[in-house]
Amino acid sequence: MQPDDSPEKHSTLDPWRGRYAARAEGMIASEVRALFAVAARPEVVSLAGGMPNVAALPLETVSAVMSDLVMRQGTVALQYGSAQGVASLRESICDVMALEGVTAGPDDVVVTSGSQQALDLIAKIFLDPGDTVVTEAPTYVTAINTFAAYQARITHVPLDDDGVIPEALAETFARLQREGRPAKLFYTVPTFQNPAGVTLSAERRPQVLDVCRRAGVLVVEDNPYGLLRYDGEPVRALRADAASSHDVIYLGSFSKTFAAGLRVGWALAPTAVKDKLVLAAESAVLSQSPFTQLAVDQYLRTQPWSDQIKVFREMYRERRDAMLAALTEFMPPDVTWTSPAGGFFVWATLPEGLDAKAMLPRATTARVAYVPGSGFFADGDGRANMRLSFCYPPPERIREGVQRLGDVIGQEIKLRDTFGATQPQPARGPQAPGPELP
Amino acid sequence: MQPDDSPEKHSTLDPWRGRYAARAEGMIASEVRALFAVAARPEVVSLAGGMPNVAALPLETVSAVMSDLVMRQGTVALQYGSAQGVASLRESICDVMALEGVTAGPDDVVVTSGSQQALDLIAKIFLDPGDTVVTEAPTYVTAINTFAAYQARITHVPLDDDGVIPEALAETFARLQREGRPAKLFYTVPTFQNPAGVTLSAERRPQVLDVCRRAGVLVVEDNPYGLLRYDGEPVRALRADAASSHDVIYLGSFSKTFAAGLRVGWALAPTAVKDKLVLAAESAVLSQSPFTQLAVDQYLRTQPWSDQIKVFREMYRERRDAMLAALTEFMPPDVTWTSPAGGFFVWATLPEGLDAKAMLPRATTARVAYVPGSGFFADGDGRANMRLSFCYPPPERIREGVQRLGDVIGQEIKLRDTFGATQPQPARGPQAPGPELP
Repeated sequence: MQPDDSPEKHSTLDPWRGRYAARAEGMIASEVRALFAVAARPEVVSLAGGMPNVAALPLETVSAVMSDLVMRQGTVALQYGSAQGVASLRESICDVMALEGVTAGPDDVVVTSGSQQALDLIAKIFLDPGDTVVTEAPTYVTAINTFAAYQARITHVPLDDDGVIPEALAETFARLQREGRPAKLFYTVPTFQNPAGVTLSAERRPQVLDVCRRAGVLVVEDNPYGLLRYDGEPVRALRADAASSHDVIYLGSFSKTFAAGLRVGWALAPTAVKDKLVLAAESAVLSQSPFTQLAVDQYLRTQPWSDQIKVFREMYRERRDAMLAALTEFMPPDVTWTSPAGGFFVWATLPEGLDAKAMLPRATTARVAYVPGSGFFADGDGRANMRLSFCYPPPERIREGVQRLGDVIGQEIKLRDTFGATQPQPARGPQAPGPELP
Repeated sequence: MQPDDSPEKHSTLDPWRGRYAARAEGMIASEVRALFAVAARPEVVSLAGGMPNVAALPLETVSAVMSDLVMRQGTVALQYGSAQGVASLRESICDVMALEGVTAGPDDVVVTSGSQQALDLIAKIFLDPGDTVVTEAPTYVTAINTFAAYQARITHVPLDDDGVIPEALAETFARLQREGRPAKLFYTVPTFQNPAGVTLSAERRPQVLDVCRRAGVLVVEDNPYGLLRYDGEPVRALRADAASSHDVIYLGSFSKTFAAGLRVGWALAPTAVKDKLVLAAESAVLSQSPFTQLAVDQYLRTQPWSDQIKVFREMYRERRDAMLAALTEFMPPDVTWTSPAGGFFVWATLPEGLDAKAMLPRATTARVAYVPGSGFFADGDGRANMRLSFCYPPPERIREGVQRLGDVIGQEIKLRDTFGATQPQPARGPQAPGPELP
């Protein structure tokens, strides 16, 4: 136990200690967060954050959209709005979802503060303490934190290169049922998964839907990266092929296809669930910003936004290619990694006996940063893994970063061969930073 | 029981019925909400909503601020931000709070999506199911909903024209302690209260702080209207005179002094509480919009914002005066009302035997709307009360609305004298609309 953890010390520092809700007990700052302050230094190549490269946006155009919006619709944009969101934006969102095969009406869409808020509101309306959520292993780190904040239990189902394994999913649902704690939700990032970079195959999609339907488990399909596809045919959303619109809550976001800083995402939900989400949103924030909602809507209605997405696709494809080429060139034998067809992330696996978290200080000293894999598991797994982002640094910096990382891993392998494997460290708090870290 | 409430009907409409969290059970849409669709018709004078009059803003200036922001700081404004909020805005917020006597540093400020989100996050980190929150009676309707969403119990303490009564507060704390459910929070709107329009007197302020401190109850001071004062000396915030910065969480907002549609508010909290709020904010929304935060900050740093607040004050003072004059002119004897020194609301009390909620359909037929008082109580009280807003309609419309309302009340008094008092209706769901309703 660290000195700071002694009850006496805490009771002096925080007179309200002991008064917090049980759900707040698990809210502890990440111990790796301090390292990421180092990672933000300009000499460090950060392969850690999930920040989109907004510098590729046409800023003059965006500036004009904002300015026009205030002049033309200022008294609406600067006023309170409805908790469900601006109606015209909800119509535009339906057009965006149609690109992934989703047929839906604006009445079933709730606009949220990024898709993160949709996830929080879903957890709020569905999860009692002790309830079980099934997720992929690994899964999106903030989803783990969000479910944990409602005192839910997380059960993982393994992924492979074709996404979650339907048989394993069915077995997990059956086991949980037998254990008397049936899964309430299946949370999945089926397309260009964060952090694993894999995509649920076309063959498995109907199987996964069927497994969930038979088990009576509501699917939460989180799809922030769907339009950022670098190879192959468009991927249809799970929601597009669900047997019933009741089966899936679909979460979307403009954070990666337009601007993360406007914080506009959405949920498409079964009608009764949507009604609850609207009430929960009102209780949480009254309404989203009509200004940022109308800004996104005007951008979609007046600008060539799908051309802009092509620009993003080209840019990120080049960066992905740079990362995969550099991994092939610089990684020691026995290091493996996924090959994402879209999105922002490659998931790498270190050779036996290496610990990605223990290695991180040495990597930042060598001027490269990544996110250790253990943050993406609720159960302490993932010590051999790391998430490598290719979204933010330009290709030549990615190459430089991967080269440095290859050297660090090579050194670790030598140390392992000389002194034996690293001892695992006990985990404390979330193991990964927020996306704002560069 | 209505047909819609039968389990069979629901199970057909919503296959997920029975799967929601216990906290979601109380999330039911307001039955008066439908009436407010009527209230939004142009021929109706709405004294119901709490919408600020954003038309008084200099839209050309705001437009230029938005446009410049994208050009100068676009890659920051459109990117993810930190969960605590933009540092320069947190500094500006400290300057704003200094106007009410608050001394604080930006490290203890968390920027939130309006002060509503701060309230939600406070409830999330402090309230276990069954915990007790003490509030004024009446109190802000969405605060009731927010605490209820975390399954807290609300205990009211009466107000008079000088705000909450310190002796009654002390007695309530003592009684709750004896009952084995000590109060966790005291939620108060001490200045220009919503809905009652009253202000805690200077004499009572140290008494209230002392009562809470002795009882070990954390004060949540919600102060959205503090700078909109129409008479007398500036009111110091409770936080300004607290014995310790640990005693009070102060909530502020730019919704009434700048633009509600940007959804920028804040909490100033004891350091350890602030740390929990930041983690809860990250789990809820990752970060607030850096765009809207920087827009507010640029507005504060480059524009004569305190002159603009003077413009708002003059405008709202004129409207308040119009309402008070019209009430004096048109209300039947035995109707009483408060005289607010600031803020947006007058609280009226009907004569014995009249029911403000039952009367609302007749009022909207007579082309005037208000919010029935029962929504501002957690315990079904307030049937004789109504909240009358003077923030949105211009003075001549306010006069017209109050005249119509006086006629309706006069008719009700005649009906009562002929047929006896109205039977109270059972309450179902929140009894008041959100602030977006005009």
